[in-house]
This record gives sequence, C-alpha cells and structure tokens, in this order.
Amino acid sequence: MPKDEKPDKKIEDLGEGIVKEIRSGKSPSFVTLARTRSNVLYDQKKGYLKLGTAQEERNFINVAQSKRFMQTIAIASKCHRFVKENLHTTIRGLFYQLKFSLGEDVDENVFSEQSESNPLIEDLEVALDLKRENLNLNANRKGVLAGNMRIIDTFGNEKIEIDCAKQGRSGWAIPSDVDNDIEFVDIKAKYVIVVEKDALWQRLNEDLFWKKDNAILITPQGQAARGTRRLIRKLSEEGLPVYVFTDSDAWGWYIYWTIKTGSINLAYIGEDVATPSARFIGVTMSDLDNYEFLNKLTINASDVDLKRAQEMLNYEWIKRHKAWGTELERMIKSRKKIEQDALQGPRLTFVDDYIRDKIKREDFLP
Amino acid sequence: MPKDEKPDKKIEDLGEGIVKEIRSGKSPSFVTLARTRSNVLYDQKKGYLKLGTAQEERNFINVAQSKRFMQTIAIASKCHRFVKENLHTTIRGLFYQLKFSLGEDVDENVFSEQSESNPLIEDLEVALDLKRENLNLNANRKGVLAGNMRIIDTFGNEKIEIDCAKQGRSGWAIPSDVDNDIEFVDIKAKYVIVVEKDALWQRLNEDLFWKKDNAILITPQGQAARGTRRLIRKLSEEGLPVYVFTDSDAWGWYIYWTIKTGSINLAYIGEDVATPSARFIGVTMSDLDNYEFLNKLTINASDVDLKRAQEMLNYEWIKRHKAWGTELERMIKSRKKIEQDALQGPRLTFVDDYIRDKIKREDFLP
Repeated sequence: MPKDEKPDKKIEDLGEGIVKEIRSGKSPSFVTLARTRSNVLYDQKKGYLKLGTAQEERNFINVAQSKRFMQTIAIASKCHRFVKENLHTTIRGLFYQLKFSLGEDVDENVFSEQSESNPLIEDLEVALDLKRENLNLNANRKGVLAGNMRIIDTFGNEKIEIDCAKQGRSGWAIPSDVDNDIEFVDIKAKYVIVVEKDALWQRLNEDLFWKKDNAILITPQGQAARGTRRLIRKLSEEGLPVYVFTDSDAWGWYIYWTIKTGSINLAYIGEDVATPSARFIGVTMSDLDNYEFLNKLTINASDVDLKRAQEMLNYEWIKRHKAWGTELERMIKSRKKIEQDALQGPRLTFVDDYIRDKIKREDFLP
Repeated sequence: MPKDEKPDKKIEDLGEGIVKEIRSGKSPSFVTLARTRSNVLYDQKKGYLKLGTAQEERNFINVAQSKRFMQTIAIASKCHRFVKENLHTTIRGLFYQLKFSLGEDVDENVFSEQSESNPLIEDLEVALDLKRENLNLNANRKGVLAGNMRIIDTFGNEKIEIDCAKQGRSGWAIPSDVDNDIEFVDIKAKYVIVVEKDALWQRLNEDLFWKKDNAILITPQGQAARGTRRLIRKLSEEGLPVYVFTDSDAWGWYIYWTIKTGSINLAYIGEDVATPSARFIGVTMSDLDNYEFLNKLTINASDVDLKRAQEMLNYEWIKRHKAWGTELERMIKSRKKIEQDALQGPRLTFVDDYIRDKIKREDFLP
C-alpha cells in the first residue's frame, strides 16, 4: 500500500478489497510478509535487520486460517475506530474490546489469550505498511531524555512545548509514539549519548553533562523500547552521531545491537527503528589498558556472558570487524566483565571524563 | 539522633562517638533497631508498618561483626563525602567506590557483592534516623504524574519550574528523592488517583482526566518505588484524599497495601512512605454487580491469586474489615479475577466514567 496514505484509509482499502473478493465469489484474503526466521535478513548495505520478500497470504476459506483471518479483520475494525475517534489504547485494551464485542456473538471466546492478538497486529502492520503506533496502539514505553532541544507535543488540542534542557532531575519521559502529533525542534546538541542504566543517566544529568558537552543524553532504562529506538533513529537522521554506552557484557551488547541493527522480532519495522550509524563507546575490555584502575573493578563474567561472547565470535559481521573479535576474546579469556557503574570508582564524576576522553580519542567499536 | 540535624553533621557525630570510644579504650559501637520480622509491627492507631523498639548494637570488637562494622563505617565515610560534594549516586556506585578505595588496602575484597552493602546502608539509615536519599544515595525510580500542581526543582543551581499540567503525553517522571531541593506548589487538584498500570495512566491522561476532574493522576508503573510512595504520602499530607486503582488480584492488592501501610522491607521508614488514609477504588469483585458487562470480561485467577486471597482472609486487619473478606471470598469461590484494562471493553473512555462513578458513590474498600 502507498506509504503516505492515512491509516484509516489504508484499513478501508483493505476492507473494500475483501468485500470485493466476497462479492466476486472468491475467498477473502490479504497478503503480508513472512516473519519467520528464514525471512529475516541482514541488509549489509544499509546495516539493519529487515524482512525479505517472502510473502504469505491469509485466507478466510482455509481451515487452518479461518479463525485468525476473522480475528485480524476484527482487530482492523477496532483500530479503524480508534483512529477515527483519535483515542489510543494498548494491545491489552484492544483485547478487552474484542472480548467485549465478539465474546457473546460467537460460540467460542474468540480471543482467550492476549498472546493470540500480537502476531495478528504484526500481520496488519506489515500488510498495511505502517506501525501499530499509527493504528493508535501504544507499545510499552521506557526511556528518558535531557538536552538542548525542544518538543512540540500536540496533546489535548493544545500545542505543549517541552524544553528538554528544563526538566530538572527527572528528564523528559520518552513516549511510545514519537511520530504522530509530536515534533522535535531546535535540536542544538552535537551528538547523542545513550546510557544503558538510568542510574548513570541520573549521575550524568546531575553533572549537567548534556549542557556542558552539548549532547542529548538518553537512557533506554535497559533494553530500548520501540519509542526510544525510533527516537534515537530520528535524531540520527538529523545528522547527530549516536554513541551507545553500556556494560561490557552480553546484556549490554544486546542493547547496543538492538539500537544499531534492530532486532529479529522487530525486523518488520527495522527500517524505522534501527540506527546503523550508532557506535559503541564502551565499556570495553580494552579500557583496561587505558584506565588502569578498572583492573581492580572488574567482576566475574556470567556463563551467559561467556556463551554469548562465544556465539558472537561466529557472526559474519563480527568476523569483518576485528576490534569486536578482540573484545570478545579478551572477555572469554579473562572471564571478567566491566560494568559502566565501575567508572564511578575513583570519583563520581569520572564517568563524565570517560565519555569525553573516548569521544576525543574516537575510541569506538563499530 | 535529633531529626532536624543535617546528614553530614549526623555522620560526623557518629564518627566522633566512635573515636571517643576508641580513645577511652572501649570497643567502638553504634546502636540501630532490629529489622527482623519479629520487630516489624503494625501500628494499629496510625495504620502502618513500623519497627518496634528492639535495639541491636553493632560492635567492632566482635568476631561476627567486625567486618560488617568496618564496612558500615566505610559507607558512612563515602556518604559523608557525597553529601559534602553535593553529588548523588546509587548503591552500585557506592559499591564501586568502596571497591576502588578499600580493595587494595585490605587483604580481602571488602565488598565482593553489592548485596552485602544494602543491609549496612539500612543500618545507617536507622542509626542516623534519616533516609538513604539524605545520604545522596538514589534508589530506583519509577512512576509518572500529571495534574494541576507545579514543581520547583532546584537543580544545577537553577530553580526549574515544572507545570504538571503541561507535560503532554509523557507526564512528569517521579524521581527517587522528592524531599531535598524540591518543592510541590500550587496544588490545586482535589484528590489523588493512583493507577497501577502505565497503559491505563496514558489512557486517562489522553482523556485529560486529571484536568476535567481536577485530580492528580499518578502511576507507580507497577509496584511503587520509594520516591513514588513518598510523594503519595506527601500529597496526602496536603489534605488530598488518595484513591488506589489496581487489578483485582494478588499483585494489585499488594501494590495497594504497600502504598497504604508500607511494607515489611521498608518498615524502618514506614512513617515516611505509608499513606494510611489511602482507599481502594477498584477493581473489585463487587463491581460485577454494578457493571454488568464486566461479567464477560473476567479472566481466570492464578494459583498465586487464590493462595494470596486465602492467606489474606486470616489477617487481623482483614477480619476487622468485612468488605475485604467478602471481596476475597468471592474471588476464591469464582476463581475469576478482573483487570483494570477490562474497563476499556465497552469503549475506551469508560474507565474515566468508572472512576467518577465510584467516587460519586463513595464505593471504596478501606
């Protein structure tokens, strides 16, 4: 479907297509892309995970698909109404709406479990070439931001202005949807620094690091939610370099890869949420050479860390980037890891200097 | 120790006491309150969990306590510096500071695990009669707020003003420390509504519920963090009624009790974080009588829900409040529960009307 069409129009087109098929005596159907593992590809040139071209047809007249087809159409119908009403909810809210209106008209409980509806919503996102946020479905939100930029949030028929340099100790909470009725303006910062842990974000925020160094300081508060990934991508499109700062362990690397290349689960929207230009600022095992004190602040790598490092060594991408191989081998050999919190060891503000120093030396991993 | 003394002064007094003991040839010691289960009491009159009067002495000249004593003094010394520097960190940051400065001076790794330091910090909080936030240790933060009130956050030598009615889709992120260098002013709202799930908070926020009904709309985003509990308590001290709105299940009840009476773990600061005046607005099993449609939106109670309900029936407090007994028995009998999200079933905005209706009918559980 054409990308610039409005979500409600797209749903109407889908519906009209189905009605037409029924009228002409055909089985109603629509086409989506396979989201199977084999259809998730890494786009070498662009640097992110995306779906391949394998299509799947969903048919109503098909014993295996009939129920799911009906469910998908019910979801589309509900979302159409949400968009028309200009009201948002979550998958869980949608689940109860479906349970409410279909629960008695049909013999069985159409949606007995919420887990049934998630793949159907993905079907719709792919078939309609839009994101669930455009269907007024909020995903979980997480993540906080501070820096020299402003937000114009059109909310409750008002244009609310939020100055991200005036959010004090709290920062601005990154919402689920950073595309619709929201604008990011006056972006005066020079780069984006993404800090895995909220605790470190608070530390840097207290030092006004974002102000002194003219950065946009973001924490995804662990693994990045859709909204935070999308926002990082949008900021990179403004020409800002993106540096990701995590623990030197399996979880930290995963957070980085997810921001940079997207994830298998979200490959169907990889183009929108991945930030291939992102670079890994630390913590790295080679920091042990440059920051002597870190040697006494390492902790034991877990089995998960070691297993993951071993797996990653076999990735094509890692093989092409020797620096990552060196990093992973060093962890495996020493069986030690480093947390970003360790940089507070000598003094609380050392973490600020660490970031500055790494950027100055351009000491990043790809 | 006197409550109004400053944290750095309190730590200095502790240190001076210890030095005096050493000089007079005694074993250095300090007194704290036992945080054992048997010393956690429910204060019937005031309605919250608190510590009893059982004291424990920590002694340096005691094989079992010597290491812990030394660790506690090291923590006190670090916190004294944080307060003097006016910089904040977390237990994890403190852990690395200790590892950094004590890790080589002594034979063993003084703090090999962070879990070792938490009880010692609690010892200090109790011995000094202050909260870790006053020692510049941030706890995890979670929770969001919108409503007719303003915040003056003294941050980075500036007085930052935040209008909680102008935070758009995001809301104001509730920090770890809501006592120091932060003020809550122009509180024009008439009551506080605490909504368990962030998704529901977003739903109500989008409807501008807090504006239309002049409420302060808070979500703890699940179990309430220290900062959010403390903030709810502070708002209740301003004379605002507090209504808590959760799922009708074990987890939802736990969130409610924690806000209302405090928790066993935090009994040592129960006086500051509990809100005994809080009332439970729903969801309740008796809502099934007043909102017919909910009958088809119940879901199966889990074993945990049923076990917890059975346990709660034996609580003295529940026995005194028949309405709770009826509620719990109804769940056990029907083996069904209700999620707050179910209120979106008939239409997304029904949840707003539900809250209004329950408040109008004063249909609360104590």
